[in-house]
Parts: sequence; structure tokens; C-alpha cells
Amino acid sequence: MKVRRIDLRQSDLPLYWYNIVPSLPTPLPQMIATQKQQELLQKVIVPECLKQEMSNDSLISIPDELLDLYIQIGRPRPLFRAYGLEETLDLPSNIHLYYKAEFLSPPGSHKLNTALPQIYFAKKCGLSRGVTATGGRITTETGAGQWGSAVAFAARLLNIPDITIYWPKNIYDWKHERKIFMEFYGAKVISSPSANTSAGKSVLEEDPDHPGDLGVAISEGLEDAASHKGSFYVLGSVLNHVLLHQTIIGLETLAQFNILGELPDIMVSCLGGGSNFGGFVLPFVQTVLKNEKKIRFVAVQSSSAPNLQGEYRYDNADHAGLTPQMKMYTLGHKTKFKPIKAGGIIYHAAAPIISYLRNLGIIETYSAPSNEREVFEAGRVFAQVEGQMPPAPESAYSIWGAIKEALDAKKKREPKVIAFNVSGHGFLDLAAYAEKLELR
Amino acid sequence: MKVRRIDLRQSDLPLYWYNIVPSLPTPLPQMIATQKQQELLQKVIVPECLKQEMSNDSLISIPDELLDLYIQIGRPRPLFRAYGLEETLDLPSNIHLYYKAEFLSPPGSHKLNTALPQIYFAKKCGLSRGVTATGGRITTETGAGQWGSAVAFAARLLNIPDITIYWPKNIYDWKHERKIFMEFYGAKVISSPSANTSAGKSVLEEDPDHPGDLGVAISEGLEDAASHKGSFYVLGSVLNHVLLHQTIIGLETLAQFNILGELPDIMVSCLGGGSNFGGFVLPFVQTVLKNEKKIRFVAVQSSSAPNLQGEYRYDNADHAGLTPQMKMYTLGHKTKFKPIKAGGIIYHAAAPIISYLRNLGIIETYSAPSNEREVFEAGRVFAQVEGQMPPAPESAYSIWGAIKEALDAKKKREPKVIAFNVSGHGFLDLAAYAEKLELR
Repeated sequence: MKVRRIDLRQSDLPLYWYNIVPSLPTPLPQMIATQKQQELLQKVIVPECLKQEMSNDSLISIPDELLDLYIQIGRPRPLFRAYGLEETLDLPSNIHLYYKAEFLSPPGSHKLNTALPQIYFAKKCGLSRGVTATGGRITTETGAGQWGSAVAFAARLLNIPDITIYWPKNIYDWKHERKIFMEFYGAKVISSPSANTSAGKSVLEEDPDHPGDLGVAISEGLEDAASHKGSFYVLGSVLNHVLLHQTIIGLETLAQFNILGELPDIMVSCLGGGSNFGGFVLPFVQTVLKNEKKIRFVAVQSSSAPNLQGEYRYDNADHAGLTPQMKMYTLGHKTKFKPIKAGGIIYHAAAPIISYLRNLGIIETYSAPSNEREVFEAGRVFAQVEGQMPPAPESAYSIWGAIKEALDAKKKREPKVIAFNVSGHGFLDLAAYAEKLELR
Repeated sequence: MKVRRIDLRQSDLPLYWYNIVPSLPTPLPQMIATQKQQELLQKVIVPECLKQEMSNDSLISIPDELLDLYIQIGRPRPLFRAYGLEETLDLPSNIHLYYKAEFLSPPGSHKLNTALPQIYFAKKCGLSRGVTATGGRITTETGAGQWGSAVAFAARLLNIPDITIYWPKNIYDWKHERKIFMEFYGAKVISSPSANTSAGKSVLEEDPDHPGDLGVAISEGLEDAASHKGSFYVLGSVLNHVLLHQTIIGLETLAQFNILGELPDIMVSCLGGGSNFGGFVLPFVQTVLKNEKKIRFVAVQSSSAPNLQGEYRYDNADHAGLTPQMKMYTLGHKTKFKPIKAGGIIYHAAAPIISYLRNLGIIETYSAPSNEREVFEAGRVFAQVEGQMPPAPESAYSIWGAIKEALDAKKKREPKVIAFNVSGHGFLDLAAYAEKLELR
């Protein structure tokens, strides 16, 4: 029988996250922070995560309790050989497609891989009602809703009761099921800009009908955490420690390719801030840095926010400029974006680590067609012929890119092993599929 | 580390389905069919399934291609020790809770376990466009929508293009995402009663605003298949061969308990027609029939359709009486039921095998409170403390029952191992959760 699904045993779960920073050929450009920004970070970011953010250790140990939680949420996750897609695309037998099944995450995406450790370390720090005198809270923002879902889910699993999630109004207003999902797990979900924060108020004063955006929501979440003692702000992408936690994806994938006895020639995933992409590819980047094998790393972006085609310069992570500046490929932190259905890959800049590797020429990038129909069609074909649940719209960009690479290789008659990451499922995005694919 | 998740390897996948019929102490009462009913069955039921329906072999071999498909859709599925629930319910250390994770099925429920073989055997029979001259179709009905989703998904995976699903109007009208899901995988979904069939027309003549029900939808699907040459009607529950295919659940669970070195004292699941319940418990029933161990089998039903508390007599499976009569616990095949959110366990009768075992005293039953709030609350607690996706409303009945049994055992200070089946997920049922739990 063909080996279609490559499973790892629970005992194969990686015991360490992989930190690429010390292996980079030159130092990663550091954050530039005013004293105020510095103080804010120190106040609202979970101390253990801040330590990881600056760490020069290549391997960072995953605590036993977190390993147990990773097992509880279904890790290690399978790697699938995409025989269905290979057949549908009529690929020659020397082009192999594989995908990592991050969509099996209970709240719907890879985001849980970092929500759990961030909240776990926050809890270790004394945050939990009854333990701290203040009853501190966890705050965050969410864009498409996957990060908020992961935070709500992780917090509840770790028994943290007070979770506040700021959500851009233009998405909050129509994603009812996603909102229910977060509330089902106990989170408080707030439409942003809100009157809760001065950042929100100042945006509303300028434009009472402001549709909200991720940058504003980040500013609000940060301010909320800063103004409630003992509270922490957790982040879903961009920062080094977020990508670090996500390397669990790539480390598992590497172990799975070791079982197969081959390595990918091309790795593809979608990229907004860079966390699923980074988590998937960084453990393989070392292979390239060591000149052991040439692998192409392809970041698929939306035409709406192709930040890796922006400028490589220092910029803020949020709209109000509360965060330090980081050296990133950016479209500018005040940019307004045309909304798309795959809202989770709309962000003005790419993670510093990703940007650095892009600047070195190690990461390639291109954008998918702007109307998204072809992308959604790729998502549907994948679900149908691979026998999987509908992928998240964002993940459909990965699939679209992998299909493009496979067809290119077929045209050029080149043997290729192509791996892609399917970061989330689309059970709560069916209305978007219906619209784009004109389902009756 | 605690063993929280009991995995089986792919090579541990059962190679046979378990047929309990030849092991029953007295013969299972046979169907009574008029010649017309007999002819209909022969015409629209997949021949291999009809053979299995009547089989006296205890073990029925699963074809290799189906084993490959079972692996593709994620089987074997994990059994979880419910440490989170045990802690939340403050159970003593000698009460253990386990659950089988059928909700990990890509289209959302255990129904896929039988949709795949039924359509696989239909295809073997020559049904597939281009292979048969007629371009035959697969028809079926669906209630809550899980069965229709499984059929749409399985048919597409097996490359069968023409799928027609009859859906009671009162559910069709509001479950938009579920409808999109079926269409996403290529099915045609029709509101029932419809003008497509004479069964539908005659109901509409009597009452043009008829809200539809499962019995009517079955009649329409049967008639549609019968009137299109080379077409088959597939069934989601009740029949012997459906329960047979579902025994993959219990066979895996048995292998998992063998690894644990213990057996459950109580097995709990929800019951509508009986397919998830039967699939889960039947491989354990032989243990009881052989007097090897006493196990209580508890069927949790809705107050709206507690068919196991009905009469044990011959009755039809559908509204129009197109199907043969089978000896079942029934509320009568013309009964109108009060709609509930867990629509998938609303059916007028329980499967003949289940009914027989109930009559023998081997299966127990009770109903959950009629307003369902407590049931939905059980579903939420499960998802939150076990770190799982929201369970299907139907599966929340299993969880509610398992919690009740655990608390009873705690009260009586009895050591117990309790296993329950969580048959589906509730990603497409969040609106029902919001209503019942009054989420903002």
C-alpha cells in the first residue's frame, strides 16, 4: 500500500524549539525602542517570551507540561503525501507533493502552537485569578479571527478566565460564528476601534466610522494590558519568540522527511506576518545556510498586502507606534489595505527574521491574483481530491502556490519534492467560499 | 507523563468489520417486505451492502482500497483519557473517563465510516460517469446535515459526480453553512418535500407548507434513485450493514483498551437511529454475551424522540412506507417530532440490532432534559477542559450522559471505567450553542 500519511509517535514530539537567530551569518538587526516603548514591552510581554525573543541559544527546551498540552491538542501532526493532487494535476512520478496538516488544530489553525506557550509562561508568572491580587488579564488583537480563537482556546485550557480580544470592526461585524467561537471558550470580544482605550478613542474622534484595522487593534490591546496591573499582551505573529514556538511545525516535518529519506526541494506557504511560514521553513533553512542542500523557500502573499515586496527598513508593528521599531520589509504601518477574504495574511510588514532571510535572498516571494477566485478554487480542489476539510482561505494561498510550483516543474520536466503547509481549516469560512466560488 | 491520548498505528487499523448478527442468542427478526418493497430494495441498495445486510459471517473483510481511504481520513482515531473532565468533576482516582474522537472526521462526523464503503461498493458496481451508460446517481436524505456532508465528501473523494441529497425544509432553510459544505464537495441539495418526486408532491398537496421531516426525505431519495437507472440510494443509519461499517469505531476502541489493560464498565453514547452507538458498542457486546465481563451500554436519547422507550414491533423506516418493515422500538413512522437543536438524533425508531439488544436487556436508555441547555453546557465544558473543538449537539448528549454516569459512580463510591463516543464536531452548530448558552 502507498504511504499516504506519515505519522510520528508521541515520543517523537520535538523536545526543543529551534531558534535560528544565533545561526544567521550576520547578527539580526536589533529593535530600536524609545524608553517609553521599552517600558511598555517590559510591562506587557510575558517575561519568559521576552527572554526567548533575545535568546542566543539554538535550542530552547519545551517544558514537560507544554509537551503534554501539545499532545493533548493532537501533536505531532501528520504529513500527507498529496497523491490526490498529484493525480489531478497529472504530475510525472518524479514530482512529489507533501503537506503538513496544521489545520487539525482544535481551534482551527497553527496559531495554537504559540498561544499555548505564551499563556503558559504568563500563568507561570502568577497570572490567574486568585493567585495574583489584581486578577490580571490576557489581552490581544485578532485579524481574521484565527489568532483570537487560539488565544481564547488556550487560555481556557490553562484556566485563565479573563481574556479580552480587540477585533477590527469591519471583520467583527460579519464573522458571527467566529465571534461565538471565541466566546464559547470564554473570551470577551471587543469591536475595534473602541472607547475602551485612548488609542481607540483618538481614531474614533478622527473618523467615527473607522472600519478598524489590525494596527489599531494591536494598539488597543497593548494599552489595555498596560493599564491593568498584572496583565499581559500576547502576540500572534512577527516577533522572534512567536516564530520560535512555531518551529514545532518544521521540526516535526523534518523528522517526517527523515523517515521518508528525502528532503524537499521547494517549501511553500502563505505569509502575512510570517509565523506559519517561519515555523514551517526555519528548521530547513539551517540546511541551506550550511550548504548541505539547496531548498527554495517560497512565500505566497496576497496582492492586497505583499509586504515582502515593500521597503526593508525600520518600522513599527502597530498603528499608533506604541511598539518598538524593527527592521522589516514593510508597506508602512499606517497603510490602509483593501479587504480580502483571506484577512489573516493582511499585515503591513513581515517578521524581522523572515525579512532578514528575504534580504539575503534565501526566501522568494510572489502574490496570488487579486480577485482570489483562483485561490479559493485551489482550496476546493485540495479538499475534494485530498479528502480533507475545507482549508482556511489563508491556507488556500499555500495550496495555490504549491500547485503553481508543481505545474512549473512539470513544464520544465524537473524532478521536485514540494512541501507546503496547510495552516488552518475553513469550517468558519464557508460563506467566503460560497461567494468566491458562486455556490448556489 | 500521564498517557492522555492512546494512538494506534496505521498498521493497527482493523482489517475486518464486526458483524454481531450470527453471535446473537436467537435469530434477529427478519425484514417483512411486500414484493414491491423487495423489488425497490434490490434496485436501489448497493448489492454488496445488501449482501452484508443478510450476512452470517462474523468478520467481514475490508477491501485494501477502503483501508487506504480510512487512513486518508485519519483512522485509526485516538482514544483520549478525559483528565480535564475528571478534574473538573472532582472524580476520585478510581473513576476513569475515556472518549473516542470520531469528531476528527474531515466532514465532521462518524457518518463517513459508512459513506465511504457504501459509495465504494456502488462504484465497484459500475456507477461512475463514463463507466455506466446511464450516468447513475447517488441519492440520499439528511437530517441534521452530517450524513449529507459525509456522503458529499465521500462521493467526491471516490470521484462520483452526481449526488442528490433531500433535506427536510425546516432544516434546509436555516443551516446555510451546512448546505454550502455539501455543495462545496459537489452535491446537489434539495429542500424536501419537493416537486421532484410523487412522495414529495403528495405531501405538498396535503400541506403546501409542510416543514418536511426525515421520513419524507427518505421516501423522496428512494423514489429518485428508483426512477433513475443505475442509481443507488445510500443510508446513514438503522440498517445492519450501516452498523457493521461503524464497528470500525468499537474495534479500534477495543484495541486501545487492550493497550491500556482495562475494559470499560460503562459505555455511553447518543442514539437516534443507532449507528454511532452501535458502531461504538457492538464489538464490546460480544464480551457480555460470552459472560466474560459485565458492561453497561447506555443509550442517551432526546426527550423529543426517545424511540427506545417506544413499542417493540414491526414498522417502516420511512414516512411513505416504501421500505420493508423491520422489528424495532418505534414511536410510529408517521410521528411528527418537536424540532430540537440536536436534529441528528431525531428519528422514529432504533436500528433492529439495537432494538433486539434493548429487548434482551443488554442496552439501557434514558433521555436528556428537553430544553437541551444542560446538554449544550456539557458540550461546552467538554470542549473547554478537554481542549477539543466544540462537539456536535448530538455528541453533547453522549457527553452529558457520561458526566451523569461519572457523578452517579462518585456518589455511590464505585470504581468505574466509563467510555463515551464523541461522534462529531460542532463547527457548523455554533449558532445553536450561542442560542442555548446565551452567548452575547
